[in-house]
Amino acid sequence: MNKQWILRKRPEGMPDASTWSLESKPIPEPGEGEVLVQQHYISLDPAMRGWMNDAKSYIPPVELGAVMRAGSVGKVIKSNNHPKLKEGDFVSGWGGVQQYTVTDGENWYPVDPALAPLPMYIGTLGMPGMTAYFGILREGKIKEGDVVLVSGAAGAVGSIVGQIAKIKGCRVVGIAGGAAKCKYVVEELGFDAAIDYKSEDIYDALKRECPKGIDVYFDNVGGEILDAALARLRMRARVVICGAISQYNNRENVRGPKNYLSLLVNRASMKGMIVFDYAADYGKAAQEMGQWLKEGKLKSKEDIYEGIENFPETFTRLFTGEKMGKLVLKVLEE
Amino acid sequence: MNKQWILRKRPEGMPDASTWSLESKPIPEPGEGEVLVQQHYISLDPAMRGWMNDAKSYIPPVELGAVMRAGSVGKVIKSNNHPKLKEGDFVSGWGGVQQYTVTDGENWYPVDPALAPLPMYIGTLGMPGMTAYFGILREGKIKEGDVVLVSGAAGAVGSIVGQIAKIKGCRVVGIAGGAAKCKYVVEELGFDAAIDYKSEDIYDALKRECPKGIDVYFDNVGGEILDAALARLRMRARVVICGAISQYNNRENVRGPKNYLSLLVNRASMKGMIVFDYAADYGKAAQEMGQWLKEGKLKSKEDIYEGIENFPETFTRLFTGEKMGKLVLKVLEE
Repeated sequence: MNKQWILRKRPEGMPDASTWSLESKPIPEPGEGEVLVQQHYISLDPAMRGWMNDAKSYIPPVELGAVMRAGSVGKVIKSNNHPKLKEGDFVSGWGGVQQYTVTDGENWYPVDPALAPLPMYIGTLGMPGMTAYFGILREGKIKEGDVVLVSGAAGAVGSIVGQIAKIKGCRVVGIAGGAAKCKYVVEELGFDAAIDYKSEDIYDALKRECPKGIDVYFDNVGGEILDAALARLRMRARVVICGAISQYNNRENVRGPKNYLSLLVNRASMKGMIVFDYAADYGKAAQEMGQWLKEGKLKSKEDIYEGIENFPETFTRLFTGEKMGKLVLKVLEE
Repeated sequence: MNKQWILRKRPEGMPDASTWSLESKPIPEPGEGEVLVQQHYISLDPAMRGWMNDAKSYIPPVELGAVMRAGSVGKVIKSNNHPKLKEGDFVSGWGGVQQYTVTDGENWYPVDPALAPLPMYIGTLGMPGMTAYFGILREGKIKEGDVVLVSGAAGAVGSIVGQIAKIKGCRVVGIAGGAAKCKYVVEELGFDAAIDYKSEDIYDALKRECPKGIDVYFDNVGGEILDAALARLRMRARVVICGAISQYNNRENVRGPKNYLSLLVNRASMKGMIVFDYAADYGKAAQEMGQWLKEGKLKSKEDIYEGIENFPETFTRLFTGEKMGKLVLKVLEE
């Protein structure tokens, strides 16, 4: 059977177990030109929260009654005359929160488990890694000596953003929740400093760690941290808006950045990004990131939970912060 | 005697008569290499409110006990061996809210009353005009067919922004307060449409006037209007932050744009600008704007009040909206 999580309700605030239902369906048969993929790992990302809202956005919302949308990585176990994919191939794509899926292969791409562990293809070598790479290089336009601040610094995107900025010769300050994450980004990932927003006043801490201000702020969180960063921008600073996890369960009452006039005083910019826009260059980015991984310049951490039954409570960890690095759910053994 | 307004207090909220004091001082004597300028017109601008706050900004605040800073235009009536300026020359610069000033001429430039009326040199051919020109062309990056929205549409900056956008082939929608201003921007200035924010729901009106969304929003006001504009951005839209007059008397509790995540969804940017950065190109801009004025493509309107004694209540008109076009105070007869 194919266990799958179906979206049942549009949540107000934080989703819970009643938001989805777990169903068992027969394993589907691939039609002519299609393949059956056995899914091993599901990617859990903050963006999924947005896809559950019935609102105009950069992609249509997940429909009620549909399998919850998610990135995934798995193995082709049956090919019905697919022109490229054959049994035994490993692939990554939009398989959703389920154990099996049938696809014609559009928007799926092959991955090689000999080069990197499978979960890394939905993390550092997948959407989060691509978001970090294009966000900090193309939108942040970092150059050597820049002071780079990144929130969600221990997360799938933030941890890569900071490491790329270090590779490029920036001073990198991370913001994360709790001593363990702060220790991790400094000692394991090589950030210059970390700020624990749960135990420090963020304004004071930024004054201490960025005494001359911030050239690039890569924002994954929004809320008060965005305001504090705006208050310390340098001239012509760039604020990259990648996400706003502090606000996602808070739709009716989103907190706007009251310090936005710092953009005016400092001739600074605030720009939103969606990784899909860079799809044409994913390959090049993956190659460069792969090289950095091989050379040990880039570290990738996946936090893997097991069992498709545990999807709702595992998903919640994105918002409670109880995870380290890329959050992954293993749904079938490799 | 030289009547001048001295800053006495840092206002909380809206300034009033007690914010400044009117003093009479002897007319100063120019030192070696200096000139004495008899001032005719003082420029009243929303930015002056910001200069009164004791806060780090793009220029230092006006000091308590100093003459209130303001742009001005006047005539050189005495030259003490100034290398360039001679008696009878007309000049524009930072003369402050007073009738006479002495200067070495730095940051002053000559103007020609035969080419344009003097007040225009502190309006359309001065800072407000330059702000409009560089803001909409260099920061807004408008192109033919763009939908351009401008707030403060009947004001010194907004009225020029909209007219330049029309010259460049855009659809231009203005936002202004009251039927008279809305009529003015459509019938006199040639905007395609105007929205009266005092009598219409701004969200509904934007839906009607910009059914396909907004490519460039030039913001002079901030607050709810900024939020409404953000909610209707098109893909890759540009929001130019020029000012936030709705928030200037509201420092402790500035309203942040809660719809800022529209920047993310639409890959849009929000960028602040300060006109001083374009100083090197003022001459070129003034030449092009002068040509448009001559050809009747650009209309300039100055709203001139008289009497230096009336500075505080005239200044207040910036915030109550009781003025049309560029607000000017005449302090000495030409």
